[in-house]
Amino acid sequence: MVKEVVLADGERLDDLLTHQLHIIQSREVFSFSMDAVLLARFAAVPPRGKILDLCSGNGVIPLLLTTRTKATIDAVEIQPRLADMARRSIAANGLEDRITVYEGDLREFHKKNGHGMYDVVTVNPPYMPAGTGDQNENEHFAMARHERNGTLDDIVAACAKLVRTGGRVAMVHRPSRLIEIMETMRRWKLEPKRMRFVHPSAEAESNMVLIEAVRDAKPELRMLPPLIVYNEQRQYNEELMRIYYGDHAVDAAAKETGK
Amino acid sequence: MVKEVVLADGERLDDLLTHQLHIIQSREVFSFSMDAVLLARFAAVPPRGKILDLCSGNGVIPLLLTTRTKATIDAVEIQPRLADMARRSIAANGLEDRITVYEGDLREFHKKNGHGMYDVVTVNPPYMPAGTGDQNENEHFAMARHERNGTLDDIVAACAKLVRTGGRVAMVHRPSRLIEIMETMRRWKLEPKRMRFVHPSAEAESNMVLIEAVRDAKPELRMLPPLIVYNEQRQYNEELMRIYYGDHAVDAAAKETGK
Repeated sequence: MVKEVVLADGERLDDLLTHQLHIIQSREVFSFSMDAVLLARFAAVPPRGKILDLCSGNGVIPLLLTTRTKATIDAVEIQPRLADMARRSIAANGLEDRITVYEGDLREFHKKNGHGMYDVVTVNPPYMPAGTGDQNENEHFAMARHERNGTLDDIVAACAKLVRTGGRVAMVHRPSRLIEIMETMRRWKLEPKRMRFVHPSAEAESNMVLIEAVRDAKPELRMLPPLIVYNEQRQYNEELMRIYYGDHAVDAAAKETGK
Repeated sequence: MVKEVVLADGERLDDLLTHQLHIIQSREVFSFSMDAVLLARFAAVPPRGKILDLCSGNGVIPLLLTTRTKATIDAVEIQPRLADMARRSIAANGLEDRITVYEGDLREFHKKNGHGMYDVVTVNPPYMPAGTGDQNENEHFAMARHERNGTLDDIVAACAKLVRTGGRVAMVHRPSRLIEIMETMRRWKLEPKRMRFVHPSAEAESNMVLIEAVRDAKPELRMLPPLIVYNEQRQYNEELMRIYYGDHAVDAAAKETGK
């Protein structure tokens, strides 16, 4: 049931997986990626409480999380254009009482909102240091992909300040920067406790890592089974199908093909 | 072709995979593990040069490495009983001119043998801090499994001192201690560059990690495909079969079953 929604130029209203949710996207400004979808599934969330999503973009992670928890969710996004898209998507789904979008800088957020206020912080940050990669992309993409508004250290620091002791920070990032991420998390008292590598295929190097750290926890890491995206037939693996289309769709398809 | 070999009480002479090598083992003292076999395959070795194996046990890694390189290999083992077993295994294979075993403490080795003398250092260290786990095991196992003769920091420090700038350190360890390993390596100027997680099955958490670090290198990690030990039929996966039994045996078996 979609509420009335006003779309800006170049925007479209997409289905958000099978969750009976809808999300405003734009080819020129922002579309959600698999990274966000996998993070929203990977993060361990309490049934109630307070969750914060940093670098929230068009709000895809908060929207997905509402299907897994009754917690209240705050989202921080620095680009006014994206914060506005997120707010309109939330309204389109009638979730204004569950998700609040703050337009602003994650480095400043704890000053107004206090330290240690959240049970869980999720973050799908820009993967590349500022000044690297393609310099010709548009401003919106550049800000989503490069650390222009805060380095990895700034982002991890914000997570550490905003999560409570014993609370969890769930991050998705590139394996190439894993050592730096681990080191930075530890420096900010976020102990990595659970990690999962995503591989495009069973024979491919990993291009994505999901990390869950706990504030002030003792060291001991669990390395989860690899998440393999495509099977040998170059179709989504069953786990990916379940994440994207839901158990119901996968089981119905299996029944149909007699498997 | 086995040279004459004298076995002590409780020792046996085993085939070392299909490499036409033989190795002295003992149920009461030391038998090699899959960890060592996978490390000996994982480590990138130059065709010639100097390789060092620390915590060498009965010399399984140096013996396996002789099938992959013409480099000279030094091995350090602190337990006299194991150093002796390693020497006799090396003699049994006629490899005395390729491998030299030093009985001694890895923390002291650089003092006599100099800094930065090796192109590659391999190490399969004890996985557990001293004083943890089963305290009733025999002395030989306790020393192989627990950090009684040097902490992780001591071991990484020895690797860093002994390898040359640009040289590689290959280690196998437990994923539960990954963060500590990464942090310690970086502190000693060993940059982790290549990593591979070993999972008992595709659905299981990892219980072993293979790590290759380069002395004084720039940060950028490659996360290799997962190494899955058992397939769904609970048999060794093809890659494991190839490592243990050789390409020839696997291809012959495939031909026989018409695959």
